[in-house]
Amino acid sequence: VSDQPSPVRRPGGRSARVRAAVLDATIEALLDRGLEITIRDVARRAGVNETTIYRRWQTKEKLVLDAVLSHLEQEVPVPDTGTLTGDLTALLEATRAVIVSARGALLLRLVARSDAPDYDPLIQEFWTARFSMIEQILERADQRGELRPGIDRRLVLELLVGPLDLRVLLTREPIDSSLPSHIVDLVLSGIASTASAPRRV
Amino acid sequence: VSDQPSPVRRPGGRSARVRAAVLDATIEALLDRGLEITIRDVARRAGVNETTIYRRWQTKEKLVLDAVLSHLEQEVPVPDTGTLTGDLTALLEATRAVIVSARGALLLRLVARSDAPDYDPLIQEFWTARFSMIEQILERADQRGELRPGIDRRLVLELLVGPLDLRVLLTREPIDSSLPSHIVDLVLSGIASTASAPRRV
Repeated sequence: VSDQPSPVRRPGGRSARVRAAVLDATIEALLDRGLEITIRDVARRAGVNETTIYRRWQTKEKLVLDAVLSHLEQEVPVPDTGTLTGDLTALLEATRAVIVSARGALLLRLVARSDAPDYDPLIQEFWTARFSMIEQILERADQRGELRPGIDRRLVLELLVGPLDLRVLLTREPIDSSLPSHIVDLVLSGIASTASAPRRV
Repeated sequence: VSDQPSPVRRPGGRSARVRAAVLDATIEALLDRGLEITIRDVARRAGVNETTIYRRWQTKEKLVLDAVLSHLEQEVPVPDTGTLTGDLTALLEATRAVIVSARGALLLRLVARSDAPDYDPLIQEFWTARFSMIEQILERADQRGELRPGIDRRLVLELLVGPLDLRVLLTREPIDSSLPSHIVDLVLSGIASTASAPRRV
């Protein structure tokens, strides 16, 4: 329905500026007030009409997820350094930088906190989109022959990111700057001593 | 102060029964009312005096953490199957069972949600105790020569558990029954194709 080309939708146009203003306002409102934000409050902060927001995002839930996703995409771009080790380390270093910031930790905790069942499909959709974007890293590594064949790529990404999220959300363990490379080393080479490592290819 | 031997403290005695009743009542109260529970409410549910609870746990925060920790310890015992693969798979299967239960997911989300700074030291203490208990698995594997030398054991455990917590707390992705063995396979053998796997021993 919304796929027809329109001068209003070109990047950098008024529409893009409004979108950016609304998403920034949403993040600010989330940081101030958590999930209790209202579209009225976001509209006020962004200097737009409420109807503009409803027309584009329909519900508060969709607005919140669009804001958090866009924020993460900006803060953690998909790297392309030429090697698997380089890409994964860059990805985790950028993820760490977001997560150790007060803003990033708060946004993650908001997603973890939103246990309303009507949020779940949107949240799943959000992370599926995010992970399939990052999977490009593994696709390129596979083409270069750096990856063990037949691997579940989504699970690999969950393995890499899991310890960071675990520390922020559950254990509150500090995340020092050497952690990304330690994780990448472990996930690349495994923990089994070479002799007994299972190689189920 | 409380280390002197006392007939009241023997396992299975009245004191142990009171402790179990209070911790069970705390879990029930948490599931009903979240972190807004009161010691008065827990005392009523357990059929004990409030002073009994204050004498033993001092604060609501300490009571909550003791309850959640004891619950996890009961639900996820540390396995000893004789092999690293066996132990890790058993550990993750028990963890999965807790996490996919409504009760377990709720308890994890409560910990993730409690962002009051005065909770943080207690939460860190809780997970440090929990992880050092599970590290026995890796200690035994190391003695059997199954483990690559020089490995950060706590990080290994975070890698294993991370994807499960990530799915429950953030992505809401389903956790099917084959996930534990897939995780163990990846963490044991790594994702790099054998030729290019870094072996930093």
